[in-house]
Amino acid sequence: MAYLYQIPKIQYEGSKSQNPFAFKYYNPNELILGKTMKEHLKFSMAYWHTFTYDGKDPFGKEVMVRPWEEQSMDSMEIAKVRVGVAFEFMEKMGIEYFCFHDRDIAPEGKTLEETNRNLDVIVDLIECEMKRTGIKLLWGTANLFSNKRFVNGAATSPNADVFAYSAAQIKKAMEITHRLNGAGYTFWGGREGYETLLNTDMKFELDNFARLLHMAVDYAKEIGFMGQFYIEPKPKEPTKHQYDFDSSTVISFLRKYQLIDHFKLNIETNHATLSGHTMNHELRIAADEHLLGSVDANQGDLLLGWDTDQFPTNLYDSISIMYEILRAGGLTSGGLNFDAKVRRSSFNPEDLVIAHIVGMDTYAAGLKIAAKLWEDQILEKNLQKRYASYQKGIGKSIVSGSVGFKELESYAMSHPNLEQNETGKQELLESIINQYILG
Amino acid sequence: MAYLYQIPKIQYEGSKSQNPFAFKYYNPNELILGKTMKEHLKFSMAYWHTFTYDGKDPFGKEVMVRPWEEQSMDSMEIAKVRVGVAFEFMEKMGIEYFCFHDRDIAPEGKTLEETNRNLDVIVDLIECEMKRTGIKLLWGTANLFSNKRFVNGAATSPNADVFAYSAAQIKKAMEITHRLNGAGYTFWGGREGYETLLNTDMKFELDNFARLLHMAVDYAKEIGFMGQFYIEPKPKEPTKHQYDFDSSTVISFLRKYQLIDHFKLNIETNHATLSGHTMNHELRIAADEHLLGSVDANQGDLLLGWDTDQFPTNLYDSISIMYEILRAGGLTSGGLNFDAKVRRSSFNPEDLVIAHIVGMDTYAAGLKIAAKLWEDQILEKNLQKRYASYQKGIGKSIVSGSVGFKELESYAMSHPNLEQNETGKQELLESIINQYILG
Amino acid sequence: MAYLYQIPKIQYEGSKSQNPFAFKYYNPNELILGKTMKEHLKFSMAYWHTFTYDGKDPFGKEVMVRPWEEQSMDSMEIAKVRVGVAFEFMEKMGIEYFCFHDRDIAPEGKTLEETNRNLDVIVDLIECEMKRTGIKLLWGTANLFSNKRFVNGAATSPNADVFAYSAAQIKKAMEITHRLNGAGYTFWGGREGYETLLNTDMKFELDNFARLLHMAVDYAKEIGFMGQFYIEPKPKEPTKHQYDFDSSTVISFLRKYQLIDHFKLNIETNHATLSGHTMNHELRIAADEHLLGSVDANQGDLLLGWDTDQFPTNLYDSISIMYEILRAGGLTSGGLNFDAKVRRSSFNPEDLVIAHIVGMDTYAAGLKIAAKLWEDQILEKNLQKRYASYQKGIGKSIVSGSVGFKELESYAMSHPNLEQNETGKQELLESIINQYILG
Amino acid sequence: MAYLYQIPKIQYEGSKSQNPFAFKYYNPNELILGKTMKEHLKFSMAYWHTFTYDGKDPFGKEVMVRPWEEQSMDSMEIAKVRVGVAFEFMEKMGIEYFCFHDRDIAPEGKTLEETNRNLDVIVDLIECEMKRTGIKLLWGTANLFSNKRFVNGAATSPNADVFAYSAAQIKKAMEITHRLNGAGYTFWGGREGYETLLNTDMKFELDNFARLLHMAVDYAKEIGFMGQFYIEPKPKEPTKHQYDFDSSTVISFLRKYQLIDHFKLNIETNHATLSGHTMNHELRIAADEHLLGSVDANQGDLLLGWDTDQFPTNLYDSISIMYEILRAGGLTSGGLNFDAKVRRSSFNPEDLVIAHIVGMDTYAAGLKIAAKLWEDQILEKNLQKRYASYQKGIGKSIVSGSVGFKELESYAMSHPNLEQNETGKQELLESIINQYILG
Repeated sequence: MAYLYQIPKIQYEGSKSQNPFAFKYYNPNELILGKTMKEHLKFSMAYWHTFTYDGKDPFGKEVMVRPWEEQSMDSMEIAKVRVGVAFEFMEKMGIEYFCFHDRDIAPEGKTLEETNRNLDVIVDLIECEMKRTGIKLLWGTANLFSNKRFVNGAATSPNADVFAYSAAQIKKAMEITHRLNGAGYTFWGGREGYETLLNTDMKFELDNFARLLHMAVDYAKEIGFMGQFYIEPKPKEPTKHQYDFDSSTVISFLRKYQLIDHFKLNIETNHATLSGHTMNHELRIAADEHLLGSVDANQGDLLLGWDTDQFPTNLYDSISIMYEILRAGGLTSGGLNFDAKVRRSSFNPEDLVIAHIVGMDTYAAGLKIAAKLWEDQILEKNLQKRYASYQKGIGKSIVSGSVGFKELESYAMSHPNLEQNETGKQELLESIINQYILG
Repeated sequence: MAYLYQIPKIQYEGSKSQNPFAFKYYNPNELILGKTMKEHLKFSMAYWHTFTYDGKDPFGKEVMVRPWEEQSMDSMEIAKVRVGVAFEFMEKMGIEYFCFHDRDIAPEGKTLEETNRNLDVIVDLIECEMKRTGIKLLWGTANLFSNKRFVNGAATSPNADVFAYSAAQIKKAMEITHRLNGAGYTFWGGREGYETLLNTDMKFELDNFARLLHMAVDYAKEIGFMGQFYIEPKPKEPTKHQYDFDSSTVISFLRKYQLIDHFKLNIETNHATLSGHTMNHELRIAADEHLLGSVDANQGDLLLGWDTDQFPTNLYDSISIMYEILRAGGLTSGGLNFDAKVRRSSFNPEDLVIAHIVGMDTYAAGLKIAAKLWEDQILEKNLQKRYASYQKGIGKSIVSGSVGFKELESYAMSHPNLEQNETGKQELLESIINQYILG
Repeated sequence: MAYLYQIPKIQYEGSKSQNPFAFKYYNPNELILGKTMKEHLKFSMAYWHTFTYDGKDPFGKEVMVRPWEEQSMDSMEIAKVRVGVAFEFMEKMGIEYFCFHDRDIAPEGKTLEETNRNLDVIVDLIECEMKRTGIKLLWGTANLFSNKRFVNGAATSPNADVFAYSAAQIKKAMEITHRLNGAGYTFWGGREGYETLLNTDMKFELDNFARLLHMAVDYAKEIGFMGQFYIEPKPKEPTKHQYDFDSSTVISFLRKYQLIDHFKLNIETNHATLSGHTMNHELRIAADEHLLGSVDANQGDLLLGWDTDQFPTNLYDSISIMYEILRAGGLTSGGLNFDAKVRRSSFNPEDLVIAHIVGMDTYAAGLKIAAKLWEDQILEKNLQKRYASYQKGIGKSIVSGSVGFKELESYAMSHPNLEQNETGKQELLESIINQYILG
Repeated sequence: MAYLYQIPKIQYEGSKSQNPFAFKYYNPNELILGKTMKEHLKFSMAYWHTFTYDGKDPFGKEVMVRPWEEQSMDSMEIAKVRVGVAFEFMEKMGIEYFCFHDRDIAPEGKTLEETNRNLDVIVDLIECEMKRTGIKLLWGTANLFSNKRFVNGAATSPNADVFAYSAAQIKKAMEITHRLNGAGYTFWGGREGYETLLNTDMKFELDNFARLLHMAVDYAKEIGFMGQFYIEPKPKEPTKHQYDFDSSTVISFLRKYQLIDHFKLNIETNHATLSGHTMNHELRIAADEHLLGSVDANQGDLLLGWDTDQFPTNLYDSISIMYEILRAGGLTSGGLNFDAKVRRSSFNPEDLVIAHIVGMDTYAAGLKIAAKLWEDQILEKNLQKRYASYQKGIGKSIVSGSVGFKELESYAMSHPNLEQNETGKQELLESIINQYILG
């Protein structure tokens, strides 16, 4: 437990602090709209980025300095050490949730049995640490994209054996998630997509994907897993076209295949922008369908075309995300999972700490500003006024369904030049956001 | 009728012709897979681009040379003249279909009544010309985006009066489409979208959009219009976010609002690529749902971020589009509408003719190559082989639904190292396409 | 002059004000780093967007409500009225500079002589207003893109007559800029670019562009115009490829054609992002070459691929822009020109006022934060530390040029495992910016 | 040498061949414009993609099947085996050139000395194989991006020791390139760029980059290396901003730092499109400055934002690239290097062969079509006609520099309404390309 000894427990010191190892805005027990900050902001550590990302990129090798991992260790020893450091890390950060893929926490063995045994060993350790610390599992998932068997997909592989293997792997991942009282289980279809339609039967692959999800629903019932299922949209990368392109595409799929009652969405900022949407949009699409489940809190670089998974530092994003969450009545089972990796040049262990502080502060500041906006109802009152014409007269008739084309034509003919519009006031609304930020 | 006097009737002269005013590949009565080219390729002229585009762009004024339009003419005179020239143009091109917005063919008057009277006058002329020439209406539509009343949308406007006006305008557009025996009616939601979520109630706006479409379905029944309704996806422009983003988004909307039995999709190449998809993908998404309706045949520039609406010249596109259409069993009510405008520098009337020739030749060549690919079943046989593992054994059980996670885990445990994948052969498949092109 | 009667002179009311017609951050005479805010922030009104933008877009007609323009007026009457309103507007806003294209202020006549006479009439009025108000001309320019004669470019047109006309037009534009004591003259090559290389001799066109600029330099000397020449980079739109793609491309051109001593850059935020760069980057590139001239202060939407020319509201942008300007020692001849248009839905005259307030407040807040960053030297001290290895030893020898490959190989051989790098601290630096924003 | 035993020497079988292991268009000794195909098309194998790419991507592990590499081998044994297979591969493909990074061919040792000894051992083997086969080195280069020491750049690292190491590494790479009679030496600045300007002194870094290149020029002279130096532009990835953004940026840098006489450009298709340009454009920019050096022949996916490095299959690209090369008088020292990797799903050794066949056939077909276009001078005659106005009268005076603004104003005043433009004929020109493709 001495690995992070030089790092203190991170405390709130307020906005004037120049201590890199202190929160400036995240004050866990501060009350916001009647709830504590930490109730609003169920931060989660992403096991993969924080404890397995070694800095490799398509052009370079490992760079991360992780003193707890020694060259002499075998992969199980490393896996065990990481559990201890991870929980020490979360304790020091005051992060109460985590998320993992099966393959993040334990190495693959030579056979599925051995792999599952490896998992069991590590899950024992994790369970102990969870009990000791009170830290909870936000969601678990299975990594169905790294191993070469998934080269052509998992549930959407043209190879039935790979489908079978995927099912077996998810079964185990669900079991350990269940055992660890995971509040949710996420499907991110890493290679569920295609490279070229020249060799792809898209309909068959999507049918198979739905088959797999129905099996998961059935199995959850069988084992009594009551956690929330999530699908996480992403438009591209690693495959050219990922089937879970964006919120609308996923919702379309869920509704078509009668899965909509069993799933919500886990929405990621960087995936949103890669699909050509704002994060705001993606959240709203889900919330309007009562399918807003959880959030992967990171950010991308809009001038780059790949998933940079940066720690969130943009206040406009954190404000609008927290506003959408408040507007939707809060996340229930979900949280704010830092699916974010330190920049490759931020290779020291201290950078891991600082990056999480930055992310937590960014969301804390975002929450405070969003809460003030919500409390003042500035935007909501403007909406009410803007759409008021549907509360009376012909507008009310349209909404109630009591008129059709003929009645509306009569109305239009008898009310010439009536269509006087009002300004959308975009610049004013944007300046109000700035005023809330700057105080 | 002398406006295009210098342009001859365009004839097929074969691939060696150097005559810019001749078809090199489009040979209307040539048989391909048992049908004539012109049965496969129901080309349609887009009234707006071909007869109303004057060359204005955000940085410049009119440039198009259109000798049939004289400064002394009023807007109705111009509208009348255009009818004659348009039909002369289609006759000379051998184009048997056209599409229009209401506002393309007749100018707006001071009142809706006057506007509708203007329409009636022009529709009389069009009807005459249709009888005379045998040219048919592929689909009609209403322009609900140019007039300033639509500044905040039409059916999705926050102003109920604008909704009413939109309904009235569509009613008339449907009536004239019905009168002209239109095979379809298209909804392209020019300003159905938003600029910023700060001032937008997206759910309410989408509900309203669905209300309008249901009214249209009801009214079609009432007047006996049996044509096919289409929605045309586009992701952005003019609004920041267009509600009909892409095929998946539209299908999601149609299914949610119980409209899916009444609509198909009209898919445009340039809109596809603006949404981050290949045209191929968008067509396949629709075809797999039996919702492939019609095609707007143009092309964009993938290095530019706006809708350039270029005439289609890319053979890879025309081959893949025609292949998807053949694979789907052909378009039924739909056709290939040249929603394309000549480049601003191609401002002469001759350029209009040449651009349509180029578009028709590109699709004719695309059809011939796609038909050969389909006939040889090269791609389809590869698919059958690639997915063969689902025809037997565990794969068959997966597809039939007779196994779940437990059975699949047992299978995976008892078949270690079974997941041997096969190469996707993308490079080989791409080279085969080239071989079909080059002959 | 009562057109804006309902709009008061805009006053600074401080950050708590809820008055849309007041500055919250822009306090003109407040001292920042020893200079007043208005000396730092030489705001300029863009005549074109603010007084000639009527709301047309590629899909719609005029929407802007401008009560000072009546249908009965001819184009010269409108031009005259606009002068009065424009200066009233600037006075009320406290904007001390403006920019214009020749064609913004006066309509084209039937001949170049008549056009120039129109200009002279309006320039007389402007000169009067400038004297009356003390408002100054930041820069003038010629519109060489709207008229159809420029369909294939101006100086880069394949038509020598168009080159000649362009020269004549610029000559007059320079003369009126000179007469109005313009501090600068800008070249934005609206259609200096190409649509397709299939019909373009790029080298010849670039040679011609350089010829034109040399003529301008010569003519400035002849008439004694001492104002600064600027080139404004933009990568695309209206043409597919604009020759002045980005800062680096323009600098390359200036250096190649021996124009570099006569020009600086006028850099626009939205053009920067369209070229794939941050605004920060574009400014730094210019500043590092001592070519940072002036700024077009707007913003784009990074999810859209065209020039949206939005009013600047993003604080991260205004902070980094003001920081680069402070770091470069300030703009000398240049200023901050709002090359920005109100959103199409913000069609009321009040929106014009509000949009400028928002822009000015955004830059004022940006300035204050950037000045604090600069004063504290947070970033600069970090840089000094980061590059310290070049201040001594082998680093110093590298910089001084006293070592070559052989010496460096010897050094590397004799210092194994020396290359210990330090973290780049990106997350920490980003969080510091947030702390400066949030206070 | 039996590793590729099942692969025959690839022969030309003509366009009707259905043999995946035969050329359909590449007929090495066929005469085109007086030279053999293989003289026009100096194909080069990229050692890294073809012999070291193992299929890792940011989401997955090795997938490539390479039977010549056994788990029991150490890294030098693998390096040795690869030399044999690589030359066998090139012989069978009829590829007469190759390119490599130092670290592709030999593994790093514990010290620079050991690393250099490893290199020497392998270079001995390569030299033997070159003599045996007659295969030549197109260019060599140093990998200054994979090792963790380059995490913050090489020549542009803030760490002087890293600069020193880089110089030492390049020295050796130049020496082995020289020993192997390399026709060129390439600089691709893998991490020469920045992640954020918050921590970057761009000017200092660029100065250092220039210092390094001058050292390279000096050292080449010293050792008598007469090969051509190249810089390879790329706009982003791995860093957010790569200093060698595009052709214009590189040329600007070379001219500023007096390096322009010593370098040419090595231009890659996928890098071109990532920078927002067509490949055509990038080649033309270089050719117009007499700086077109060599080509990295691959292709990207314009709907994806990262470097996919696909094997070239697009005929429009290969035609336009070969046309630019023919127009520029051919590549002299350079060639067509397949900086392309097989798709991750194309993991069999056979796919390597097929992918190279596809690339070679694509360029062969491109050459034949481009040569016909050039021979017929279709495009060039159009250019002459289009710019003819500069051959006489006022146009000639403009070009000769004998007129200025005053003369041109007089001309414009005395020639009213003269500026009659001509159509750019883009659609017609595009259709002509199709006709040349389809025959």
